[in-house]
Amino acid sequence: MLELYHGGHTTCSRKARLCLREKGLPYRSHYLNLRAFEQHAPEYVALNPSGVVPTLVDDGVPIVESMLINEYIDDKFPDPPLRPATPLGRARMRVWTKLASDQGLAGVVPRIWPTFKMHTDKLSSAELGEAIARVPLKERRERWAKAAHGGFGQHDIDSGKDAARLIVERMEASLGDGPWLMGEQYTLADIDLVPFVDRFAEFYHDILNSVATPNVAAWLARVRARPTTVAVFATDEAPGSKAA
Amino acid sequence: MLELYHGGHTTCSRKARLCLREKGLPYRSHYLNLRAFEQHAPEYVALNPSGVVPTLVDDGVPIVESMLINEYIDDKFPDPPLRPATPLGRARMRVWTKLASDQGLAGVVPRIWPTFKMHTDKLSSAELGEAIARVPLKERRERWAKAAHGGFGQHDIDSGKDAARLIVERMEASLGDGPWLMGEQYTLADIDLVPFVDRFAEFYHDILNSVATPNVAAWLARVRARPTTVAVFATDEAPGSKAA
Repeated sequence: MLELYHGGHTTCSRKARLCLREKGLPYRSHYLNLRAFEQHAPEYVALNPSGVVPTLVDDGVPIVESMLINEYIDDKFPDPPLRPATPLGRARMRVWTKLASDQGLAGVVPRIWPTFKMHTDKLSSAELGEAIARVPLKERRERWAKAAHGGFGQHDIDSGKDAARLIVERMEASLGDGPWLMGEQYTLADIDLVPFVDRFAEFYHDILNSVATPNVAAWLARVRARPTTVAVFATDEAPGSKAA
Repeated sequence: MLELYHGGHTTCSRKARLCLREKGLPYRSHYLNLRAFEQHAPEYVALNPSGVVPTLVDDGVPIVESMLINEYIDDKFPDPPLRPATPLGRARMRVWTKLASDQGLAGVVPRIWPTFKMHTDKLSSAELGEAIARVPLKERRERWAKAAHGGFGQHDIDSGKDAARLIVERMEASLGDGPWLMGEQYTLADIDLVPFVDRFAEFYHDILNSVATPNVAAWLARVRARPTTVAVFATDEAPGSKAA
């Protein structure tokens, strides 16, 4: 049995949810409320030592890192294939999934994390200190503290836009042959990038639009129109939420 | 024919050189002097748009990103196998190769890049400005400017040590069953990590030593003793250098 621990509409969780949906694989869904720090609870950290989402659990065995979860899913459940058939095709596809992994979060964090302050503001100073102390990764502890103290500023916004621009410009230059990043085959390259690019279109309209980046805009419209994407974007799978 | 564009003993170049040597694959070696900015020359950027090393060229087709180059080599030339035989094994191995990719450079940059100042100091202000302007990635342009202006400080040293500690602690906790990170099989996990851990042992003796981290220290000694590692560490493959 497959189980997915995830944060609903958060970018890396959508990556794994999109891949599972594309494969038509049923799974038991475990929604974690990231704003309530559920990803740092000891029982989850036992599955995912970094305390981040998502985690796929296959017959009780945890697999971490959304990029690697998606490779695992395609490796174990090859039908329909979401990776090219040749070593060269796979290497080229991974340049995209690695780019999503390396730069995607950087592009959205400065726009999303400042909104966490409204949640941390509800905690007492002691409660906040305890919550942050439980975050396994030092880098994430510092990011939570920064969000809680209103520390995100223009420099962060600019860095986020730089990361988004790097992704969007590379996609624009490569998408000429479409319809997908690897050509005729829809692959993990498209799946891993769309959760980020979907947000970039909202946050950075000046660098991603149908005039400046027609190829990326058309690609985004095509990916968003896929029934699998529609289904995943329609629900966060939280208990009591509307199912797709 | 295989060709490798590389920076000799630099960490990511060693990753690819170790993998090729482990496979016994002959290749044409193209050494780039990174301190002379040869990786930013237009003819190289045509192969590697980010202007970083290494790049593998297979029958004229470039493959970039050391982590992905090594997956490609094992994908195309499967004997001897350097990845586990099962999807789960490969997913677990990739947690290590991704950790090396995500945190390895962060662990060595604050110790290595300040030494580049002795090279940039030989340039006039105009020459330096032109050299930095040719660096394709904004992040790398900023890092070159920081090195040239003596901008690396204690905060960077501390961050580098944090990255090294994250890698070393995870390895120490996992290596009990050795001899290699994936157990009996020597894999890309070992190959991708050793160039970084080899330098950590030099830079951060307080966090990597036979008392604090006996498993990592013993693993490092085992990897260094492999004939393939001895051969790669013995030469930078620069023209006129001593061959292994």
